[in-house]
Amino acid sequence: MSDSLKKSPLAPSKAAHLPPLVGVTLAAVETGMKYQDRDDLMLVYFPDGAEIAGVFTRSKCFSAPIGWCRDIMGGGQAKALLVNAGNANAFTGTAGDKAVAEIAGSLSKALGCKKEELYFASTGVIGEILPSKPIIAHFEALIGDLSVHNWQKAAAAILTTDTFVKTATRTALINGQKIQINGFAKGSGMIAPDMATLLGFIFTDAPLSQNLLQDILSHSTELSFNSITVDSDMSTSDTILAFCTGAEPKIQDINDPALDDFKEKFKELMLDLAHQIVKDGEGATKFIEITVTGARDNRAAKNIAMSIGNSPLVKTAAAGGDANWGRIIMAVGKAGEEADRDALKLVLGDQIVTNNGLVVSEYSEEKSAQHFAGKNIKISVDVGIDQGSARVWTCDLTHGYISINADYRS
Amino acid sequence: MSDSLKKSPLAPSKAAHLPPLVGVTLAAVETGMKYQDRDDLMLVYFPDGAEIAGVFTRSKCFSAPIGWCRDIMGGGQAKALLVNAGNANAFTGTAGDKAVAEIAGSLSKALGCKKEELYFASTGVIGEILPSKPIIAHFEALIGDLSVHNWQKAAAAILTTDTFVKTATRTALINGQKIQINGFAKGSGMIAPDMATLLGFIFTDAPLSQNLLQDILSHSTELSFNSITVDSDMSTSDTILAFCTGAEPKIQDINDPALDDFKEKFKELMLDLAHQIVKDGEGATKFIEITVTGARDNRAAKNIAMSIGNSPLVKTAAAGGDANWGRIIMAVGKAGEEADRDALKLVLGDQIVTNNGLVVSEYSEEKSAQHFAGKNIKISVDVGIDQGSARVWTCDLTHGYISINADYRS
Repeated sequence: MSDSLKKSPLAPSKAAHLPPLVGVTLAAVETGMKYQDRDDLMLVYFPDGAEIAGVFTRSKCFSAPIGWCRDIMGGGQAKALLVNAGNANAFTGTAGDKAVAEIAGSLSKALGCKKEELYFASTGVIGEILPSKPIIAHFEALIGDLSVHNWQKAAAAILTTDTFVKTATRTALINGQKIQINGFAKGSGMIAPDMATLLGFIFTDAPLSQNLLQDILSHSTELSFNSITVDSDMSTSDTILAFCTGAEPKIQDINDPALDDFKEKFKELMLDLAHQIVKDGEGATKFIEITVTGARDNRAAKNIAMSIGNSPLVKTAAAGGDANWGRIIMAVGKAGEEADRDALKLVLGDQIVTNNGLVVSEYSEEKSAQHFAGKNIKISVDVGIDQGSARVWTCDLTHGYISINADYRS
Repeated sequence: MSDSLKKSPLAPSKAAHLPPLVGVTLAAVETGMKYQDRDDLMLVYFPDGAEIAGVFTRSKCFSAPIGWCRDIMGGGQAKALLVNAGNANAFTGTAGDKAVAEIAGSLSKALGCKKEELYFASTGVIGEILPSKPIIAHFEALIGDLSVHNWQKAAAAILTTDTFVKTATRTALINGQKIQINGFAKGSGMIAPDMATLLGFIFTDAPLSQNLLQDILSHSTELSFNSITVDSDMSTSDTILAFCTGAEPKIQDINDPALDDFKEKFKELMLDLAHQIVKDGEGATKFIEITVTGARDNRAAKNIAMSIGNSPLVKTAAAGGDANWGRIIMAVGKAGEEADRDALKLVLGDQIVTNNGLVVSEYSEEKSAQHFAGKNIKISVDVGIDQGSARVWTCDLTHGYISINADYRS
C-alpha cells in the first residue's frame, strides 16, 4: 500500500473483517525486496487441498506466473497460493519462467506437496526478473506464520499503489448448511509504475466440484471484474483465483436449486470487491454506474457501456461535476454497436435528459449538475434497438490520475 | 479559435499560406451566434462546379449535416460548401434535419443552383438545434465576400477549441502540368464542450473523375486522419470532403502512372493536416509517432499501434518524460492481436530497449529519458509474427487535457 498517496475519498469507512474459513490458513512476511516496513509476500496453505478455478488476463504479454498457473490448472487440487508484491515477473522471457520453476521446486519441498499443486501471482514492476532466492529464503518464516486468522494481514500484503485494503465476506446457505465465502483483491489502475494489476482471490468452504467452481467464477467475473474499468488499460498480470475446501459429496450441476443462494452471494462478493477496485481507481473522486438497455444483445450493451466508461471526455466531465450529456451521446455513437439515434433515451440520476433523440422540454440542467456534483453518478441509456442490457462501473478521470502516472517515477 | 487557451507548444511557427486555386472562391462572416469578434460561418463556392468525395464519422449518432451529405453524395457535382462553428446540429432529431433542409433551400436560391449540389458541415455544441434564420440572414454578406484569396479567412472561421489555424498546400505534376492542392482542417480533441470535431477540406484543380477522387481520398484518409488519435473519442460530426475543379478530359484509373506524383503529394498534404490536429491535441506538449512492424497483417499492426496511442498510461508517461517501457508492452499485450512475447523488439528513439522479449543488457535508461524529455517521441515495436506494419500519431495526456475538459464548462 502506498504511503505517498492519500486514501481514496471513495474508500469504505472500514475494511470488512474476514472470519476463519475451514481448510484455509494464511501468512505474510516482509522480504524487504522493494518496500519498507510492510509485508510483501503472502502464502495461503490448504492443509487438505482445495478445488481451484481461475480467470486470467487476455494480454498476449502475460506474466511468467500466469503461464505457470494456466499450465497446471485442471490437473487436480491446489495445496497453496504464493503471491508477491513489488515485482510482476512480467516480460522477463525464459528467465522469468525459470524463477517460477525454482520457487515452485523449493516451496513443494517445504510444504511436502507436488509442484503442480502450487499457484503463483506476482504484481509490481514489469521487465525485472523476480529473484527466487530472497523469496525462497522466507519460506520457513511464512510457514511458521500460517494461521486461520491472518486474512487481513494477507489482504494487505498483496497491495501496490492501492490506497486501502479490499476485503469482502458473505455467508450463504446450501441445503440448510451455512457456507462461508471470503475474498480479497488489489488494483487501482490497470497497471502503473508500481503496477496496479488486478488480483482477486476468493475462498469458500462450499462442496463444489472443480468444473462447477470454474463455471460460477467465470460467470461472476463477467458481471463483476470484467464489468469495471479505470483507464481501459489491461495488465499483463490480471489474475482471479477461486478455491473451495468443501468435502465430498460435491455438487456438480450449476442448475442445482440448492446453489441459488450461494451463486447470488458469490456474485455479490465479487461485485463488492470489483467496486472497491474502482473506488480506489488512480485519482478517483467519483463512482460511476453505467446501465445500457435496449441494445441488440447483452454483448452489444456491454460494448456501449464500456465505450461510455472508457471515454476520457465522459470521465473528465464527471470529474468536473459537469453533466455534459453530449459526451455520453458521443460515446454511445462511437461504440460501433447498433443504436437508434432518434429513439435514444438518456437518464442521469433519476432525471430523463433525452427521449426520442431530443432533449426533453422539462430538462433541468441544474438538477443534473447537482447529481454530477455528488460522489455517486448514475448514467442510464436505452438505445432503442432490442432487449440487450449490461451494467458497468468506472471512476472519473482527474488531475490526480495525471499526477500519479505522469508526475512521479517509481 | 479559443481565446482562453494558450497556443499549443507544438504549433508550427507560421500557418502555410494557401494560394488561389482555379475554380474555388471563399468567404467567411461573423454571425455573432456564439462567438464574439470572430468569423464563424464559411462558404466555399465553385462557379463551375466540382467533383466531390467524402469520408464521414462512423458514429451511429451522426449529425444532421452528415446525414444530408451522405444522402446527396454521388448524385453529381458540388456547387458549394457551407460550414458553421459553434453549433454541431448533432443529436437534434428531425428538427435538426429540418434546419439543414431550410438552409439548403435558401442557399440554393441565393446561389441559383440545386439543393443537391450543396454540402454542409457543423461543429460545436451537441444537442442544440441549429437556428436556420441567423444563418440564412448572412447569405448575402457571404456571397458578396466571395474571393479567390480568402483561404486563411475561411480556415480560421471553422475553428472551435483549436489554438491555431491548420492549413497545408502542395503542388504536383500530372502529365507535366502543375496541379495545386490546398487544404485546411480543424480539431483538437475528438469532441469537447465547444466540440472539437475533426473537419478537413481539400481542394485541387486536378482533372479527376469523382470515383477516382473518392478512391484517393479514402486511401489517404486511412493513412492520415484515420491514423491519429488524441483521446480515442470519436465525434458525431467528423467530416472530410475533397473537391476537384479540373476540366475534361478526366483521369479515371487510379493506377494511371501520370497520377504517381499527385497521389504522393495528396497523401503528404493530408498527413500534414492530420499531424497539425494531433499537435493541437487538447493539452498536448509532445508529438508521438508509433510504428508497429512484424504483425500478422497491416490491420493487426494498426490495432496494436492504436492500442499504444490510446493508452492513458503510455500517454501520461510521455507527459511526464518517463520512458516507462513496461506500459508500452502492456499496451501491445492488451490489443488482442497476435504478438510473440518472447520475440518482441521495442525501440525508443534510436535506442533498442528489448529484444527477444527481454531488456537488452546495454540498455540506458538515461538515454531513453533524454528522448522522452523532448517534444518528439518515437516508439517502434516489432511483434515478431509476420510482415504487417502501420504507423500512427498521438500526443501526450497532461494536466492541460484535464483542465480543458473538466475544469470549465462551455
